[in-house]
Amino acid sequence: MFAMVGPGDRVVIPEPAYSLYADLVVLAGGTVDFVPLGRDLHWDLDALAAALPGASMMIFSNPSNPTGIVHREPELKALGELLDGSDTLVVSDEAYHRLVYPGHALTSALAVESLRDRTVYVQTFSKTYAMTGWRVGYLTGPREVVDAAAQVHRTLNGSVNTAVQHAALAALDLPDSVMDAMVDTYRQRRELVIAHLSDIPGLHLVPPEGAFYGFLRYDNDRPSEEVARELAERKVLVRAGAEYGPSGEGHIRISFAAAEDDLRTGLARIVGHLDVTRS
Amino acid sequence: MFAMVGPGDRVVIPEPAYSLYADLVVLAGGTVDFVPLGRDLHWDLDALAAALPGASMMIFSNPSNPTGIVHREPELKALGELLDGSDTLVVSDEAYHRLVYPGHALTSALAVESLRDRTVYVQTFSKTYAMTGWRVGYLTGPREVVDAAAQVHRTLNGSVNTAVQHAALAALDLPDSVMDAMVDTYRQRRELVIAHLSDIPGLHLVPPEGAFYGFLRYDNDRPSEEVARELAERKVLVRAGAEYGPSGEGHIRISFAAAEDDLRTGLARIVGHLDVTRS
Repeated sequence: MFAMVGPGDRVVIPEPAYSLYADLVVLAGGTVDFVPLGRDLHWDLDALAAALPGASMMIFSNPSNPTGIVHREPELKALGELLDGSDTLVVSDEAYHRLVYPGHALTSALAVESLRDRTVYVQTFSKTYAMTGWRVGYLTGPREVVDAAAQVHRTLNGSVNTAVQHAALAALDLPDSVMDAMVDTYRQRRELVIAHLSDIPGLHLVPPEGAFYGFLRYDNDRPSEEVARELAERKVLVRAGAEYGPSGEGHIRISFAAAEDDLRTGLARIVGHLDVTRS
Repeated sequence: MFAMVGPGDRVVIPEPAYSLYADLVVLAGGTVDFVPLGRDLHWDLDALAAALPGASMMIFSNPSNPTGIVHREPELKALGELLDGSDTLVVSDEAYHRLVYPGHALTSALAVESLRDRTVYVQTFSKTYAMTGWRVGYLTGPREVVDAAAQVHRTLNGSVNTAVQHAALAALDLPDSVMDAMVDTYRQRRELVIAHLSDIPGLHLVPPEGAFYGFLRYDNDRPSEEVARELAERKVLVRAGAEYGPSGEGHIRISFAAAEDDLRTGLARIVGHLDVTRS
């Protein structure tokens, strides 16, 4: 029923997007069709309507890395309508599903009836349980896709580390209160980021709705890779927006998965360095 | 300089061989050219001489899984001569390099001058340090091959589990005496296997020279997958020889990575079940 991605297949990726998606499409021999997000970093549904016909797959993260946006239920339903009658697969990477801030709510693609049967749902223990270095996750989706993914994984990787499998099972038994406390810490850091970066001439931040990223736009034409390199020299690590697609240029991605004091220091250096009145 | 394996490329695999090699070649779109081993389970150099011209790659393990054979320095040198002037890559999987029994000696492909520059050397912590479930290893070889392998690994897998990297570094600091004691235990089990399986009508074991496998040939025409299934029902797990290539039919692979008492019980059941005088 669903095509896998191979030579000649086209994959739609709303961008800026986690850069590994495009890498994997290229590795499989497919073609990436980047569709820019709207100014609010949500999907541009008209642009998607133009790009989706004939596409083998669409890939996105929700909440989004690098933008910190949560794609809302109406967006997902609109996507489902656009895809109605097609055999386009949807890959919904919901790694940050537990990290959603007050006033926002995540709807899984699996909860949208028009998307459910065509969705490959990708999940990880990295973010919810702070197990990034442990390398364990899972997926669900149409049987033929999951079977093929399992065969490739078995052939290339073998089993997942035995101890990590036990740790993942233990993580699933944690009470919600453990994760709630972590999410509350991220919420406070998010407010700190918004407070530091608002009302600064030449800097524009769409307040993060989920995940732990701020995608900061700056009003000058310095390449984001140069900005990221210069900040690294000042001991502040950010990622260049250009890494996430052509529309990411003129942005840097700030992670607030750092202690509050470090965050304050880093944000002050970023603001000082990006002072657009001096450039 | 060296071709990677892609559609249309031919890869020579002396067989029986670890079955994942052929799986990986097929996954990459290449063609497997199985070359049967000689009766002594060493390479059939005449057959290799006929198969190697034009091959992109040759893959083998040494010591060998599933045969328990150690390919000797003269074999490796003869392979180097056969490949002289070609751009055929050699993949030498030396996972069992520490498991070599008295009277036998392993020569790494990297120590054979005519092979060294064309060899991709594959190593793991699984066997030497009994870290099978930990999923960590490494390779060395021509720069363009290692760079490409690193790029695929980075894209598909990301980093190796952080804790496992620390464990691997700790393993490298272990004194030789730790591994020597383990090898000595395997040596005793090997003797137990040889003692149990020798001089039994219709059963033929080439004494293991390395690794922890006995590749047992039996004189009847029952399919090895059937034999393996029947033994599993009797709670003895072996692998069917057919899994390792067409010449593996009529064999089962016995692992002696098991406690001596279990090994005695298992060997007795195998001998009883394979009693060729009754079939």
